[in-house]
Formats: sequence, C-alpha cells, structure tokens
Amino acid sequence: MSSTSDGPRGSGAGPVGIGVAGLGRAFMLTLPSLLKDARFRLAGGFDPREEAMRAFTDAFGGGGHDSLDAMLADPAVEVVYVASPHELHADQACAALEAGKQVLLEKPIAESLEASRRIVATACRTGGRVIVGPAHSFDAPVLACLDLIRSGRFGKVRLVQMTTYTDFMHRPRRPEELDSARGGGVVFSQGAHQVDIVRLLAGGLTQAVSANAGNWDPERPGETAYSALLRFRGGASASLTYSGHGHYNSNELHDWIDELGWPRAPEQAFGARHRLRQGLASTDELALKNARTFGFAPIPDAAPENEHFGQVIVSLDGADIAVTPRGLTIYDDERLTTMPLPLPEGAGPRWPVLDAVWNMARGGPPAIQDAAWGHATLAVCVGIPEAAATDRWLPLADQVAVPDHPNLDQPETET
Amino acid sequence: MSSTSDGPRGSGAGPVGIGVAGLGRAFMLTLPSLLKDARFRLAGGFDPREEAMRAFTDAFGGGGHDSLDAMLADPAVEVVYVASPHELHADQACAALEAGKQVLLEKPIAESLEASRRIVATACRTGGRVIVGPAHSFDAPVLACLDLIRSGRFGKVRLVQMTTYTDFMHRPRRPEELDSARGGGVVFSQGAHQVDIVRLLAGGLTQAVSANAGNWDPERPGETAYSALLRFRGGASASLTYSGHGHYNSNELHDWIDELGWPRAPEQAFGARHRLRQGLASTDELALKNARTFGFAPIPDAAPENEHFGQVIVSLDGADIAVTPRGLTIYDDERLTTMPLPLPEGAGPRWPVLDAVWNMARGGPPAIQDAAWGHATLAVCVGIPEAAATDRWLPLADQVAVPDHPNLDQPETET
Repeated sequence: MSSTSDGPRGSGAGPVGIGVAGLGRAFMLTLPSLLKDARFRLAGGFDPREEAMRAFTDAFGGGGHDSLDAMLADPAVEVVYVASPHELHADQACAALEAGKQVLLEKPIAESLEASRRIVATACRTGGRVIVGPAHSFDAPVLACLDLIRSGRFGKVRLVQMTTYTDFMHRPRRPEELDSARGGGVVFSQGAHQVDIVRLLAGGLTQAVSANAGNWDPERPGETAYSALLRFRGGASASLTYSGHGHYNSNELHDWIDELGWPRAPEQAFGARHRLRQGLASTDELALKNARTFGFAPIPDAAPENEHFGQVIVSLDGADIAVTPRGLTIYDDERLTTMPLPLPEGAGPRWPVLDAVWNMARGGPPAIQDAAWGHATLAVCVGIPEAAATDRWLPLADQVAVPDHPNLDQPETET
Repeated sequence: MSSTSDGPRGSGAGPVGIGVAGLGRAFMLTLPSLLKDARFRLAGGFDPREEAMRAFTDAFGGGGHDSLDAMLADPAVEVVYVASPHELHADQACAALEAGKQVLLEKPIAESLEASRRIVATACRTGGRVIVGPAHSFDAPVLACLDLIRSGRFGKVRLVQMTTYTDFMHRPRRPEELDSARGGGVVFSQGAHQVDIVRLLAGGLTQAVSANAGNWDPERPGETAYSALLRFRGGASASLTYSGHGHYNSNELHDWIDELGWPRAPEQAFGARHRLRQGLASTDELALKNARTFGFAPIPDAAPENEHFGQVIVSLDGADIAVTPRGLTIYDDERLTTMPLPLPEGAGPRWPVLDAVWNMARGGPPAIQDAAWGHATLAVCVGIPEAAATDRWLPLADQVAVPDHPNLDQPETET
C-alpha cells in the first residue's frame, strides 16, 4: 500500500481509504494483498480488543479509531471493511451504510437470513454499495472460468462438481465459530464459499437443494460435513461435498498449494487435530485462536499463487473446465488445454476482490457479489441442513442471476 | 492359464473349467488376468458370431461349443462366465444354474429388477452359486479398504465420496449399450460399479437415494451423467457423481493410470468423441465396436497396475482413506500413511474376482457380491433416474448387508 495519489487504474481521486471493522483473522488474510495494492490506503481501524488496536497503531503509525462510530464519522474512510465475527456483520454493515459508506463485507453476509435481509434493505434504501467478500468466488481462476462460460464458446453449463476437504473444524476457534445458530460451522463459513462459486458458474438462480449433513466428531458441535445436490434455473445442476474434519485435504489435488495460495508441505496439510490437542494441553482455545489473529502473529507476505477452494469441475455442452490455483484446464472434444493464470506482477492473490472494491469506490462496474447476491448464497447455505433434516428437495427463494450467463437467455431475479 | 492339475490354492480337484457365454469386449477385458492364473482353464465358449467362435478356436486350439446348451451339457465346464449383452444375462445365468453350473455374471446383474429377481430366485432354488463380477468392487484396493474398515481401527464409516469422469459414452457402442431401457447407459453400466463400491464400503444397506440425472449430448441418448446422494443404515452417507461425456477424465487423479490398470498418456485419455467421429466417417459404429472385441483385436497383456473407478474418499470417525490404483492412502488425526498394494507376482489386476471364483468352485468362503448383492446394487441404480424424475428421496428395498461391517452391529438383510 502506498500513499501516492493514484492507483494503477486511478480516477484522479487518489487511493481509496479503507476502514477496517474487526482486526482479526479475516483482516490478517486480506492484509497482504491490500498492502501490495497502491490503489488503497488504510484510513482507519477499530476492534474492541486493546491489543489489536495497539498492534494496528504500531504497524501503521496510527489511524486507529476509538469506536466504530468514530471510524464511520471519519471522512477519510470511504469503504468500511467489515471483518468482524459473523453476528456483528448486519449491525456494522448497516451502520456503515447509514453513515454513507460503501461496504466490503466478509462472507458469510450474516448469521441469519433475517440479518442479511436487513443489510439488503439498508443498502437499497441508502443507495450504498456492498460487496460480499473476500470469498473464493473472487479467486482469479473462478472469474476466468466465468468469463470462458460467458463467451458461449462451449454452450451451456450442465454440471458443477465441487469436493472440498479441509481441517476447518480443527483450527483454533472461538465458540461461536463452531455454532451454526450463530453463523459458525461448515455450512455458514465454508458453504458460503462453495455455494458462491457454484452459483456464479451455474447462473446463480438456485431452484432447490437436497442434502445430507453430518457431524461425527464428539469434540466439535454442529455440522462438520455435508453433501448437497443443487438444481439451477437454466438447466445446470451441481454436487457439493465439504468435510472440515482435518483428515483428507483437497490441497492434494492442487500440488499441495493451500487454500490461501501457499505451497505447503503435505505434512502441514494434516495433523491439525493432533496439533490442536497438543496446544490445548498448555493453554485454552481462545488463546490459540488469538495467536493467529492480527496483533499476535506477524503480518504474512502475500501468497505466490492464486487461492482455491478444492476441486471444481464444470461441465458444459462442449467441454469440461477444471479450476485450479494455477489456472484453468479445458478438456474439449479433442484435447486438454491449459490456461495458466499466474498472479499479476506485484499483486497478492486477493487482487480481484480489490479490483471490485476499487470499482465500487470509483464508480466502475458493479461486482456480481453484492448484498442481494450474498443473501441468495446464504439462503442456499441455510437450506442445506434444513433439506437434510426434512428429507426433501427444498425450494429456494431470493435467488439472483449472473448477468450474461449462457444458461439464462433472459436474466432475471427471483423474488 | 495352464493345464497343470493344481492351482496355487488348489484343493486337489485341478483347475476350474470356465465356459464363456459371450466372447465380446467384457471377455477381452477379463481374459488377460484369466490367462495368467493357473487355477483356471478355458473349458468352453459360445458366441452366436462366427468370427468370434473362429477366433476362440484359433486362440485356444478348440474348445468352442456350437450352442449355449451344448456348453451347459459339457461336464468340463464347472463355472459359466456370462459375458454377453445385458439383456441376455438372466436367461443365460438361469439356464446355467438349472444345468447345475456355478455362474460368474458380468455387471450389471441384469437389465431390469424383474430379470435380476429371476436370477436370485433361480440361484436360491437350485442351490447354485453366483458371483456378479468382474466389477470394480473387486479391485484389490477397494477390498483392502473394506478390510481396514472391518478392522474397526478407525470407527464407523460416515461419508463416501466418489467422482468418476470417463469417456464411456463415446467409446464405440452397440445401440442397446446406450439405451437405459435395455440395461445400457451410464446408470446401468457405470452406476453398477460406483454403487457396488459404495455399498461395499458403507455397509450395503442403502436406505434412500436423491439424485440429478442428465443428458446434454444430442449425439447420445439416455442419461449420460448423474449425481446421487445415498443414505445407509448404520449412519453412513455417500455422494456419487458420474459423467461419461469424454471431457475431463478422473484418470488424472491417479497419475493417468486408466480404469483398466494401464499407464496411459494424458492425450489418450481425451478425444474419444473426436476419434469416434473420425471413425464414423469411414465405417459404422457396430464395426468400430466389433473391432474392440475378442476375435478382432489382439488379446492384450495383463495390465501392470490395479484397476480403479475414479476418485474414492472414505471418511470414518478416525481417518479418511483414499482408494487409488496404487493402494490406499490413510489420513488420520496425525499424518498421511500410504499402503502400497502392487499386483501379486505373476497376477493380472482381476486376480481378486478370480480368487472369489476359485473359492466358489472349490467350496471356499462366499463372495459378498452374489446374486442378491447384485440385485441390491441394481435396485439403487434403477432408483437414481427415478429419484431424479420424481424429485424425492426414493426409499430402496432388497438391500443386502456387508457382513462384519462396523456400522452394523447386527448385520441383517432387508427384504
């Protein structure tokens, strides 16, 4: 990040001032890409934890705010990045919108459909703009896949297969991160990524979901794995499986590049459960969690590869496309073709969401992943355990279309 | 194959005499493993096609029969290997049982549940034994995975994920091979493998299925892809996706070892559709199909690796297990461990089903994959398009348990 007056796509208005609400782990994961992007400057930050505020001041030479209200009153803050626990998303996002700010809102949009509806309504009433992200639907290979789909070269999307195995449930957690009723667990925190990607590639208008949801881990409450089938308006279907149990890891399918774009030795991809048990022998889980957040751990470098979210295979009429952290692999009637997508020179892997934030702040084209989109994704996530519990194809409402998607001759929004 | 009097596990009764009904592609694929196994001898063969009979005589110095009845009347034939088109399975298997023979019956067991019920009833009445195979549930790594599951070391099976992408629909085909009503298409021919493997690993007692089934290929009728969720008595669930469209190929996940155990260059895994179109420019599809069957193509060597059926990840309480053609990979709480399973010295990849046939013929322990098992698998396959068409969790009947499976404290058979 620099304080020069213009970013690479500058409009003349200078770098966009970002104010961060919640200096936790999510902020830590976005910071490396943000620090590499001259189009932005950190104009403020707020966190109720004193240590985090102190670290912010140390790292950035001041700029922290004493309260969320103080940050929202600061004209230097143009975009509020809401990176707080899920239960605070709606209150903080709505307050920012009411204060005339634009909002970058971490996924999932909120911990309940009621809360996300409030965000959508507030954005609508205030005219403020919202991007729900960073999320893996902003990974550059996912967006490149959407571009290829939209080109129409291979016809319609017919099937999307996603298989994601991680150690999500055995990283150190705060209690609410494991509680579905509070927006935690795999369906909210991780389903939000899978569903976002699948909706983007399949056209967005999810019609119904059928699912199995499970938890066979006595150490962790709530759903820890699920499999779901989706049907989309326009003819696509999808199959998603997510397991956060910390055994098999789908990084293995991507040359051991991890979800954040780091090459990681296989042994580091396993043993999360063992390491957590070891850690808990000497301290409590909250301390282990805090040790991974801003102010306690050093700010990491930006990762050298694109982020990813496991195995993604998109089947169209004329080709299958595999989305990987290295780019796209296209399997058509005749051959396999690779489309490498290295990170742009000097960029971190989260550059596409920062592109979208820049466009939001400087009047560029809107991102697909706005508040209504995030609400639609949440509706599918909430539907997964409900469909599993009620043994049926659950119809889904509030879905939002992907513009110019070949499956949708007349894009429309369901209400 | 030899004519020595005893196989390696011989009972003193000499090699088992096999009579083959249907000298087509299925026979071609089993022959290499059979020819390497001294426990068996080819005691007969019948096919209505003159060329196939001539090739049989040329290859094996006689031994062909003029009719199925003649083969069934031949006391040298102890086991009848039914490798004919699916619609002939029931008539031929029942005739063999009535003649007092034991039967090795290619998957799927039959083209309809009515036909498979007839086989089960005939086996029961005559006391004859049936093995439904070869099928990928006999692949050595699948059976080793079941052994590990049965050991109880990792608790119960909770989730099985299978993803299989092949060029099945674009290999040269006879018309009935593409017609679900006649036992063709991916649900019968390929679902039989997936469901067999999943049932074996998850305990066998499938309770219900929910599914999407699709065909987006104007050149090929019937279902060409499906995704299905299954639920099992005893707590396991499964997610299966199969696509036979000839684009992405799940051999990629296994170092490009193909389904039959051959290392195959990536470019050979693709382009089936292109090659078929090229072939059809100069001849008809039946001629292309025949060119791949016994009598037209040379008898291949036995493959050097285990066969496989795509991606298989089994999640248990204490570990995930990946099944690959090279063996098992076990991901427990602490680490990744590989269990290599090279082919036994001198054996072809289908040695486990031949072990089962030997045991059947010589009074050894019964295979799990008997007629009732094959019927149960077919019931799930038939259920996939029905569940998809009726938008519901379809309850499944006629399921058969895996003995000594940790999910089933009291193994039982549903009727």
